[in-house]
Amino acid sequence: MKHQTDIAIAQAKKLLHIREIAAKINVKEDDLEMYGKYKAKLPLHLIDETKVKENNLVLVTALTPTPAGEGKTTVSIGLTEGLNKIGKQATVVLREPSLGPVFGIKGGAAGGGYSQVVPMEDINLHFTGDFNAIEKANNLLSALIDNNLQSKTNNLNIDPRTILWKRVIDMNDRALRDVTIGLGGTANGIPRQDGFNITPASEVMAILCMASDLENLKERLGNIFIGFTFDKKPVFARDLKAENAMAILLKDAIKPNLVQTLEENPAIIHGGPFANIAQGTNTIIATKMGLSLSNYVVTEAGFGADLGAEKFLNIKSQFADLNPKCVVLVATIRALRHHGGALKDAYDTADLVKVKKGFANLEKHIENIRKFNIEPVVAINFFISDSEEEVNFLIESCAKLGVKAVLSKGWANGGEGTSDLAKAVVEVVETKATQYKPLYNWQSPIKDKIEIIAKEIYGADKVVYDNKALLNLKRIDRLGFNDFAVCMAKTQKSFSDNDKLIGRPKNFVITVREIEIAAGAQFVIPILGKMMRMPGLPSKPASENMFIDKNGVISGLS
Amino acid sequence: MKHQTDIAIAQAKKLLHIREIAAKINVKEDDLEMYGKYKAKLPLHLIDETKVKENNLVLVTALTPTPAGEGKTTVSIGLTEGLNKIGKQATVVLREPSLGPVFGIKGGAAGGGYSQVVPMEDINLHFTGDFNAIEKANNLLSALIDNNLQSKTNNLNIDPRTILWKRVIDMNDRALRDVTIGLGGTANGIPRQDGFNITPASEVMAILCMASDLENLKERLGNIFIGFTFDKKPVFARDLKAENAMAILLKDAIKPNLVQTLEENPAIIHGGPFANIAQGTNTIIATKMGLSLSNYVVTEAGFGADLGAEKFLNIKSQFADLNPKCVVLVATIRALRHHGGALKDAYDTADLVKVKKGFANLEKHIENIRKFNIEPVVAINFFISDSEEEVNFLIESCAKLGVKAVLSKGWANGGEGTSDLAKAVVEVVETKATQYKPLYNWQSPIKDKIEIIAKEIYGADKVVYDNKALLNLKRIDRLGFNDFAVCMAKTQKSFSDNDKLIGRPKNFVITVREIEIAAGAQFVIPILGKMMRMPGLPSKPASENMFIDKNGVISGLS
Repeated sequence: MKHQTDIAIAQAKKLLHIREIAAKINVKEDDLEMYGKYKAKLPLHLIDETKVKENNLVLVTALTPTPAGEGKTTVSIGLTEGLNKIGKQATVVLREPSLGPVFGIKGGAAGGGYSQVVPMEDINLHFTGDFNAIEKANNLLSALIDNNLQSKTNNLNIDPRTILWKRVIDMNDRALRDVTIGLGGTANGIPRQDGFNITPASEVMAILCMASDLENLKERLGNIFIGFTFDKKPVFARDLKAENAMAILLKDAIKPNLVQTLEENPAIIHGGPFANIAQGTNTIIATKMGLSLSNYVVTEAGFGADLGAEKFLNIKSQFADLNPKCVVLVATIRALRHHGGALKDAYDTADLVKVKKGFANLEKHIENIRKFNIEPVVAINFFISDSEEEVNFLIESCAKLGVKAVLSKGWANGGEGTSDLAKAVVEVVETKATQYKPLYNWQSPIKDKIEIIAKEIYGADKVVYDNKALLNLKRIDRLGFNDFAVCMAKTQKSFSDNDKLIGRPKNFVITVREIEIAAGAQFVIPILGKMMRMPGLPSKPASENMFIDKNGVISGLS
Repeated sequence: MKHQTDIAIAQAKKLLHIREIAAKINVKEDDLEMYGKYKAKLPLHLIDETKVKENNLVLVTALTPTPAGEGKTTVSIGLTEGLNKIGKQATVVLREPSLGPVFGIKGGAAGGGYSQVVPMEDINLHFTGDFNAIEKANNLLSALIDNNLQSKTNNLNIDPRTILWKRVIDMNDRALRDVTIGLGGTANGIPRQDGFNITPASEVMAILCMASDLENLKERLGNIFIGFTFDKKPVFARDLKAENAMAILLKDAIKPNLVQTLEENPAIIHGGPFANIAQGTNTIIATKMGLSLSNYVVTEAGFGADLGAEKFLNIKSQFADLNPKCVVLVATIRALRHHGGALKDAYDTADLVKVKKGFANLEKHIENIRKFNIEPVVAINFFISDSEEEVNFLIESCAKLGVKAVLSKGWANGGEGTSDLAKAVVEVVETKATQYKPLYNWQSPIKDKIEIIAKEIYGADKVVYDNKALLNLKRIDRLGFNDFAVCMAKTQKSFSDNDKLIGRPKNFVITVREIEIAAGAQFVIPILGKMMRMPGLPSKPASENMFIDKNGVISGLS
């Protein structure tokens, strides 16, 4: 039972100095770049590829979520506490929250209840400045592009109508979605249509999360595809000599951040792309850092397993040669009710019939995980409104599929509430783990890769392409980008590209509207439906209820 | 003689751990919030108002500068080294550089040669995130304004045509000067004209520099004047309940930053408003922090003494009850040649005739400083192209006015090159210092305050007001802001509002085009001529020559 807000619980915790957390994973104080007493950056030389191979990577994902989310971050933190409680040396590796949603509806992303990473205020605000650095690197490139358009001595002949690169800001600011820039006369540049995305949607974020080191980061930044010249030649960031300055802006952002959980276990938090429009997981560097320093690493990927986990396994793990040994599928009874047809008002009312119907959604995710040759464990993120018969049904239904489903009570009880889950995970890792297999090979044609994801993971009958997407495919071919990974942009609310199709939809078609290129990240991004890359604020923004007293103590932040 | 770039000199220096710098000013390690090993934030409780009164404040300003600047920051750092060299315990208190100019023409602002603050790369890049925090607080308010325009339940009835608040970005990006936002349909808000200023031009920056503590910061943020409702009522940030969330974003930015000079003396760097459009000096909190921890504080204010020093003395010192005991006027022979009529190509060619003619500019600045009841010392920032006869003329001419002029060779020789300057400053402080007097009282009518500055400091015959300015004066009166300070926005190139009038112009008129309101900072800002608040990049941006190697070592940053 929780009677306190997340922030009150977090503030009540007396934190260990970060050097003591570092000592737990054998990092010397001299290797820490401290940001105050409770945050530090870790140098890249601590990454040890041998240990990356030896240690155990556990991915936390979820069934198709309701809008409130099913608690992947909370379960990831709780599981880490549980693993440490049963004697395993475990570190949680998470994404950094975006500032925009903190002032909007969603709030921060530092876990909840008694499964949080702290200091939660700092993590949810500017943290160590990584998002700012990404924003500045992105926007420096934008400024260089517009500056070049009107440069007399240095002009690359870029056709302003073809520029795909947008500015970003880490703010929910819908008025910046669609703007006209360069107005006001010759001194102010060439007028053109532009728009701002939220920072987690920047390709620079995607690149940071894919980079293996500073040199690789720089190369990727140079490879960013901007648009075309008037004579139809592709223009890249390197043509503007932008990659060094951008990498200079990211020289600290490339280093993962160390903080602690409420139970004083290590947490590494680094990078934060959204999972519906980008790869949805923390940096490769952070995951490898965790594995270099810890016997168990618990990490998460955004939204349902059809988005975050699919990308984690096909893109990140394949590229970085990671071998996740267990996947934890977070399920909630309320999400099963939802997939069984319950309306929002009834999410918290026990309804075994709807849970039974909704189970089809989880079942499909279980099937999908096994396609990667990984054994899932289901974590039932417990809510007080869950009835015993609903929970028992879920456990038994999973058992019939040979899957262990375990109650996870980390939100209410921290590591005490997740020991059973931790034991189930360890059992899979120690007795069942095999070599995971990606579903496709990056070398395959783009259309094949799209088809595999749509059919194998989403369960679609077929994939159709709008004219624009077909033209985009030709462009990708012409540019020689066929061997890029496929990073789907799809609604998180359904296996399909239609929000409304809950549960386990069948007999549907996936429509690819267009296909974007993130050449630095080495993705193509098929757009399935209208994707929002700049959220708005609600009518009554969360900022209105925030308060800071004269001593700097914050309330109303969630 | 210097044969190395600034960055090479800075990188060759083996830095002390910041805890050792802190120890020199009796700050305990536990009070430091470290940002890596060489930067730290200082908590506000270290401010001691008794010591602020007892210790010695020295302001470094300059004659009317050439576009390259006359080296105020370099002299401030050099003088601090010199003071420590002659046995005084001195700290330099500076502004933070803006990121925009780093990638443009100007470069960073961490001093030069053997008078630098280090780590120069970090100081010139994101530093401890203060500018980012200011940018986010500014832009959160913008997002709240646009969000409110289309809110159904929460609407303040703001007339979008009256909104004065602009977005900011710390980037030289001319294409953002004049933009149209909110395009693309009802979901994206109300279309309106807007623009981006560079971050140092944000009123949030001005507010941070005026704030006495977190509570005062919050109150000032709430007082920001945004525009009017359709029924002509003024709208403030507090009407949007924005001040707490904005203060939360600034909770760390309010704390001054401690770094070191090349000679391992303490440097406090905090806040960075430009001096032509804002108050042009570091935060009141930083200056008081320096005075609380150090017997001598050397600080600077931007551009010529007609801008930075005037505002430092009439606005900052008056408001914060500071008592500057000596003003160092930085002069260069090249600037005197310029004021004597030398063209840019001849700046580095000895020309006694032009120096004699140009001296009138310095003479007027000397007269001005004395109007504040403070005794100036002239620092001749030495260049290799300075001839002995020019330097001797300058020293003798100052002597005739009863002012000591001393060669300052900090750029070439660090503290060794500034001992004489340090001795001259100490002599003024110990034997001549009196109680400084501001030129006007904040309670006087706005027009009187403008007139005093224009006539007494600039040397104008009279002040005329455009129609818009007269309407603005009525608005200021109606809003009850007559007792605000006056923060002039004027070209830095002339005493007058006309770039071309070098030297000591006479018989001229100052024209006030309009008068802006910075209600949170408690200024009104008379605009004298067209002021640029968003610089552009040059045709070949500095970013093109920057390089970072695989170990993170940067070159090409200046």
